[in-house]
Amino acid sequence: MGSIQGERTVTGWAARDSSGILSPYTYTLRHEVVGEVVEVGSEVTKFKAGDVVGVGCLVGCCKNCKPCNSDNEQYCNQKIWSYNSFDTDGKLTQGGFAEAMVVNQKFVVKIPDGMVPEQAAPFLCAGVTVYSPLKHFGLMESGLKGAILGLGGVGHMGVKMAKAMGHHVTVISSSDKKKEEALDHLGADDYLVSSDAAKMQENFDSFDYIIDTVPVFHPLEPYISLLKLNGKLILMGVINKPLQFVSPMIMLGRKSITGSFIGSMKETEEMLEFCREKGLTSMIETVKMDYVNTAFERLEKNDVRYRFVVDVAGSKLDG
Amino acid sequence: MGSIQGERTVTGWAARDSSGILSPYTYTLRHEVVGEVVEVGSEVTKFKAGDVVGVGCLVGCCKNCKPCNSDNEQYCNQKIWSYNSFDTDGKLTQGGFAEAMVVNQKFVVKIPDGMVPEQAAPFLCAGVTVYSPLKHFGLMESGLKGAILGLGGVGHMGVKMAKAMGHHVTVISSSDKKKEEALDHLGADDYLVSSDAAKMQENFDSFDYIIDTVPVFHPLEPYISLLKLNGKLILMGVINKPLQFVSPMIMLGRKSITGSFIGSMKETEEMLEFCREKGLTSMIETVKMDYVNTAFERLEKNDVRYRFVVDVAGSKLDG
Repeated sequence: MGSIQGERTVTGWAARDSSGILSPYTYTLRHEVVGEVVEVGSEVTKFKAGDVVGVGCLVGCCKNCKPCNSDNEQYCNQKIWSYNSFDTDGKLTQGGFAEAMVVNQKFVVKIPDGMVPEQAAPFLCAGVTVYSPLKHFGLMESGLKGAILGLGGVGHMGVKMAKAMGHHVTVISSSDKKKEEALDHLGADDYLVSSDAAKMQENFDSFDYIIDTVPVFHPLEPYISLLKLNGKLILMGVINKPLQFVSPMIMLGRKSITGSFIGSMKETEEMLEFCREKGLTSMIETVKMDYVNTAFERLEKNDVRYRFVVDVAGSKLDG
Repeated sequence: MGSIQGERTVTGWAARDSSGILSPYTYTLRHEVVGEVVEVGSEVTKFKAGDVVGVGCLVGCCKNCKPCNSDNEQYCNQKIWSYNSFDTDGKLTQGGFAEAMVVNQKFVVKIPDGMVPEQAAPFLCAGVTVYSPLKHFGLMESGLKGAILGLGGVGHMGVKMAKAMGHHVTVISSSDKKKEEALDHLGADDYLVSSDAAKMQENFDSFDYIIDTVPVFHPLEPYISLLKLNGKLILMGVINKPLQFVSPMIMLGRKSITGSFIGSMKETEEMLEFCREKGLTSMIETVKMDYVNTAFERLEKNDVRYRFVVDVAGSKLDG
């Protein structure tokens, strides 16, 4: 365990998602960390030993730019990731697959009383990733009609979050493979196969928003057509091949193509409180540390609903 | 002059813009019409003979869809254009290059007292086209930094409207040909040549919005880079060749690519009042009817600052 100074807290317990990013460096992994505060620095005011807390994607920012000064530190150009990112001391951040981590209190949130810690873990990235744009773009009011394009880790959270907001939620997918999952297990209201031209047409001009979680190139126009006046297509997938659209499809309905990137610490706190109020749970599979290699193999086959959570504390690493 | 029934009013006087649309049909032209009310139908409540009024792009809508029911009739799928559009009686609408026109009062606005009628004409389309998105997207507050991409009829109005809102306004153009015009005549604060990489880079991450009036294919990414967190690229040009962008440029800054299409009658009224309050004028060249052919030739060469207004009433058509 590193030294503890100033505003830093130490926690243990970890979760991981399905992105499976590898690095040439030797380091421990991962974001979406939940644990108990072991010790606090002398300037820590928000937490005390024994608090159950969480850490998301970020552990640092410049604290001095416009995004930082407006509670949007996720858009700071000098943000520091929870793992595999150079910290202010020049060392690589080490993530949450560890017995303990040291984090500045700004990047730590309290897990609300009554929330199961391992359930909370996926909220800290996937959860706030869908909560943040719905909040920011004024899409939290009950009665809206929304769609989630793609049903992976972020998509499943999108369905749950949007349902908890009282929206009519449609899952859009390229096949009907996930139909039962979407309707029966996640509680979506409708399921739309994007190649079903007739059903797509029935849904033209009807959605207030579409959260597009597809991480590879895909046409946007079929989805823009589904949006009603002032509708928003919210991109979540980092896609480096240019996406395309023709301008009249946007203009003749004042539609927006926009995107969003995780969420702020303030939004993370709000989102956790929202999840507690609504009794929202995530779908996870909790495993021990000795299962990690198998978990990786299963991730490569997309064989997880929807997050593995690694119980580091319960893994008896010294045993 | 046609018969006058119900909610209809009759006006005379006309303006035309630089788009030079031609039609296979024989019909009179144009939108952006200003004139005096000659006669009103029995159900007309908003106007009386002698009122100076204006008509914009539209003279009809279905009055029954969601856009119509939310004061967004410009997005109605059954809207009827001021000219060259089939009216509810099956006849082509005839525009404003005429001694008189008959219009439903919903699509007529009062020209505020003290505003010069021919000055008001270009506000009725170009003016509301830039006013509407600034209003809708919450971009009217003083102190914002905006850019106008392209300096034609809509662009010049964008500069004037944004300056009147108290914005810092930059004109972006492909060459420095319009620099003097932008800075000295229209009152823009800065001028940016899009091929000047160094100056473009200086302006990265600095604009709240860019109103993009370019009507042909162009890359969007240089302009997305200029936007700050939450910045909006507002498209005004109908471009049928697909425009392109990569998703991280949007996501990592929660930027939006959006667009807008003229404005509602309610916004037209508000905009005219705003222009009156701020003493806003348009840049026009008033001509008589016998100059129309020359005006067309000059339009083809882009030789007008920025609108021709045709003084129909003063043209002695019977002479």
